[in-house]
Amino acid sequence: MTKLDTLGRHILVEYYNCDEDVLRDPAVIEQYMNEAAVRCGATIVQSVFHHFNPWGVSGAVIISESHLTIHTWPEYGYAAVDLFTCGDINPWVGFDYLEKMLGSQKTESTEIPRGVTSKIQRYSPHNLGVIVHKPAEV
Amino acid sequence: MTKLDTLGRHILVEYYNCDEDVLRDPAVIEQYMNEAAVRCGATIVQSVFHHFNPWGVSGAVIISESHLTIHTWPEYGYAAVDLFTCGDINPWVGFDYLEKMLGSQKTESTEIPRGVTSKIQRYSPHNLGVIVHKPAEV
Repeated sequence: MTKLDTLGRHILVEYYNCDEDVLRDPAVIEQYMNEAAVRCGATIVQSVFHHFNPWGVSGAVIISESHLTIHTWPEYGYAAVDLFTCGDINPWVGFDYLEKMLGSQKTESTEIPRGVTSKIQRYSPHNLGVIVHKPAEV
Repeated sequence: MTKLDTLGRHILVEYYNCDEDVLRDPAVIEQYMNEAAVRCGATIVQSVFHHFNPWGVSGAVIISESHLTIHTWPEYGYAAVDLFTCGDINPWVGFDYLEKMLGSQKTESTEIPRGVTSKIQRYSPHNLGVIVHKPAEV
């Protein structure tokens, strides 16, 4: 078991100058988001995607290691993607895959630690001991 | 129509020292997350929640204004919540509601702008003109 400094890592991605036709197709976006989850090494629990008329696509993939979400603005060639992962998987594989599949010519990202274990221990009324990674059973 | 500086606002919340019984109950968490969306003034499109054995709950509420997500670690009294909203709704109402309903004794939050319009314009090959708020039709 691995002692953890944070429970999760959360990457917020701005995909600029994407392929507008891809961004407006809910079936294609769902396929790419699910494939991104698989390529990260994640286990998909459930995904939900929705197409907003006349604009973009919103969706979430719940994975046993947290979630991936996307919101697209085809008219601006822009998509906001979140890759929130726990445990021993690599969200950057999903980042790279989506950059390619969305045809994004410019990306920006921010990584935010989620569930910093020293803070969880600090604010808990209990002695939590060592916080370790415990894979979930789906 | 309102000229926009950003397409969305994204609040990442750490809820520490929560009610552990609440955090492990998927039906209660789903109810609170949906109610949080409604109280923000959002329109719910679809929600998905999942209970991981023997641990916490993960879920997403897709709203026509983007999404709310949650991941709970009952054994640590900790929940990670995201409130990503577009348009003229107030995610902090949802923040306050969840703080109360999860029984969190300590919160921390980070607000990240998503889709900064000057950057979208900068990286677009097109002249996008003025970027304004356009409510989606669900």
